[in-house]
Amino acid sequence: MASSSYGADWARWSNVELMSTERAHAHTPSSVFDRFHGVIPAGGTGTRLWPLSRAAAPKFLHDLTGSGSTLIRATYDRLRPLCGDRIMVVTGKVHRRAVLKQLPEIKDSNLVLESEPKDSGAAIGLAAAILFKRDPDIIMGSFAADQVIAPAEVFQAAVREAIHTAAEGYIVTIGIRPTHPSTGFGYIRAGDPLLIEGAPSAHSVVEFVEKPSVGVAREYLDSGKYSWNAGMFVAPVALMLKHLEANEPLLYAGLTEIAEAWDTPSRVEVARRVWPSLPKTAIDYAVAEPAAAAGDVAMIPGDFSWDDVGDFAAIGRLNPAMENSELTVMGEGARVFSENASGIVVSDTKRVIALIGIDDVVIVDTPDALLVTTKEHAQEVKKAVEALRASGDIDVL
Amino acid sequence: MASSSYGADWARWSNVELMSTERAHAHTPSSVFDRFHGVIPAGGTGTRLWPLSRAAAPKFLHDLTGSGSTLIRATYDRLRPLCGDRIMVVTGKVHRRAVLKQLPEIKDSNLVLESEPKDSGAAIGLAAAILFKRDPDIIMGSFAADQVIAPAEVFQAAVREAIHTAAEGYIVTIGIRPTHPSTGFGYIRAGDPLLIEGAPSAHSVVEFVEKPSVGVAREYLDSGKYSWNAGMFVAPVALMLKHLEANEPLLYAGLTEIAEAWDTPSRVEVARRVWPSLPKTAIDYAVAEPAAAAGDVAMIPGDFSWDDVGDFAAIGRLNPAMENSELTVMGEGARVFSENASGIVVSDTKRVIALIGIDDVVIVDTPDALLVTTKEHAQEVKKAVEALRASGDIDVL
Repeated sequence: MASSSYGADWARWSNVELMSTERAHAHTPSSVFDRFHGVIPAGGTGTRLWPLSRAAAPKFLHDLTGSGSTLIRATYDRLRPLCGDRIMVVTGKVHRRAVLKQLPEIKDSNLVLESEPKDSGAAIGLAAAILFKRDPDIIMGSFAADQVIAPAEVFQAAVREAIHTAAEGYIVTIGIRPTHPSTGFGYIRAGDPLLIEGAPSAHSVVEFVEKPSVGVAREYLDSGKYSWNAGMFVAPVALMLKHLEANEPLLYAGLTEIAEAWDTPSRVEVARRVWPSLPKTAIDYAVAEPAAAAGDVAMIPGDFSWDDVGDFAAIGRLNPAMENSELTVMGEGARVFSENASGIVVSDTKRVIALIGIDDVVIVDTPDALLVTTKEHAQEVKKAVEALRASGDIDVL
Repeated sequence: MASSSYGADWARWSNVELMSTERAHAHTPSSVFDRFHGVIPAGGTGTRLWPLSRAAAPKFLHDLTGSGSTLIRATYDRLRPLCGDRIMVVTGKVHRRAVLKQLPEIKDSNLVLESEPKDSGAAIGLAAAILFKRDPDIIMGSFAADQVIAPAEVFQAAVREAIHTAAEGYIVTIGIRPTHPSTGFGYIRAGDPLLIEGAPSAHSVVEFVEKPSVGVAREYLDSGKYSWNAGMFVAPVALMLKHLEANEPLLYAGLTEIAEAWDTPSRVEVARRVWPSLPKTAIDYAVAEPAAAAGDVAMIPGDFSWDDVGDFAAIGRLNPAMENSELTVMGEGARVFSENASGIVVSDTKRVIALIGIDDVVIVDTPDALLVTTKEHAQEVKKAVEALRASGDIDVL
């Protein structure tokens, strides 16, 4: 992550973080970590990464960093040192086979399959309800399947602080240090430091704020009080459900009904009956924002590099360029010839691709669809997907 | 063809051409046209049009104008009103099946198949020798298979003048009126008008000149004395062979040996034995230039639009852009979505192609190779082909 100006608080946080966490880890009874369970919501089709990412093969099923791991596998591996195989995945029914191929070790009872998308409130809420039914003392940590994070150790240190903080009765979000005045993310406004053993960098959260204008985003950046909301939560399941019940009683009731049946023979029958009736809402509205207003939310600054791979320009950031060229090429067996060309080529075929005299281009070559755009216009790929859907060309979406 | 400044001679030529030719046609005995035979050399792979045009499917086998006809079929149809089925095609042996598919009516004896390329001297020379053997009074007209000409009637009027002129003992080239100071073509410098009945626009030719620098090309354009050499010749076969014998006696001897055997049972045996031994040379060096020096060459100005489809920028000129867009799309069943994009898309697949925020782009999408460049760099496509050949990627050439 490129260094940029950030406030005094951020500087202080990063200086103490690793050291303090190590100390904390050594002094804390291991039981608090034993309560920790990972949850990986794996949803969204990543339309800005079309035609690579699409309904049948969403972003989290791709290796977008050239590491050899798909994003969901990397997310799972990043959590394992914290919770072993106590990891639950919530994804679409259509992705069952693909997810099992990536995570062959996952138990059936820890793979929650949605028959239809119901947004993050239902997805994360159901995980919380199932875990609560198993053990009401569980602390869950929810981390999206399609984010790129490094180094894993710094991430894990932040999660350990978050677990300590959650054990004190907080819904803890891990804030991402902003590197530029992004208008594409929501922000978290930190308040005072919390004095929690094992979590020296924990702060209270004053509020979550929606995606800002660029001017406001610049103010946020300069103040040093704001971090990006990456949707990472560590919280006692009981506290999650308390806020869910208060804000979305119908959703809470439905999720509890499914959770009661989950580890019984009637799991499939109840889920099939109840899930379609659930209201659609984001976990931010259902839990995080009202919890923040109630003073129940804390924040641990995450001083790791983080990318949500929001468009193809990110592919360029996350992958090295070719030797003697400003061209980044992704794809096994890609056959690219370039002359005076720069940009990004994602090859999902074995075709020869020749680029001549073209700069900052983005080319995504798949068997049934080809995208040609520029880094500058990478965000507009969503429009193409919408237009194709409108025109009935859904075979390639 | 865009109007541009051209000299006084050109203006005079175009004014009289059509009218005079009609008059000439009415007053001339029909026998001079009965002597006329068409020859279509169909060679070259058109590497600047890779990956659409390639060794196995060269330029002349494609419909590059969206007319529904391949270039070779259009060339054949343009000649038919002049000579019916008295048309000979010279092409590579590997293209036999594809050419017969385009020209199913062609007789075996009029399809000359080269076992290996020997340049235009041997190709056009062999046609001349075979026709001479059949009838020494034949006037041949040689027209490359991969040029785009319109309207056909104006072309045919020029050829009729050329036939009249050839009947007076000239090798007649049809000069193309230059529309810009091209450095990519050779030029023909015209001399005095020739007073030939039925060919009021016939001029003597002072010399052929090689591709000029841009400054020289501009002088040529301004002088009004120069036209582009499109390699179109109309000439008595006897005169062609006289110059060929004088300049390339070995080539002449070999071609005559094949021609003697052509309409006999030993055609295949003799051609197979002699052809590989023939020297490689262009018809320009073997016949046209020395004939011009001897005062035996005349020129008819061709006031039709002409394009040799030298690169993908030409595809843009020859095909209309999409409605509400500056994008030209070629290819049956092309599925192109574009947003703020301009340029040329040639689709040889059924894939969806999405273009977003990119200008003057050239995209050629074929099953095994993809080219992405710009109109400005279209001429450099040849480099890609050379680099692919050098790297051993010959499967896509």
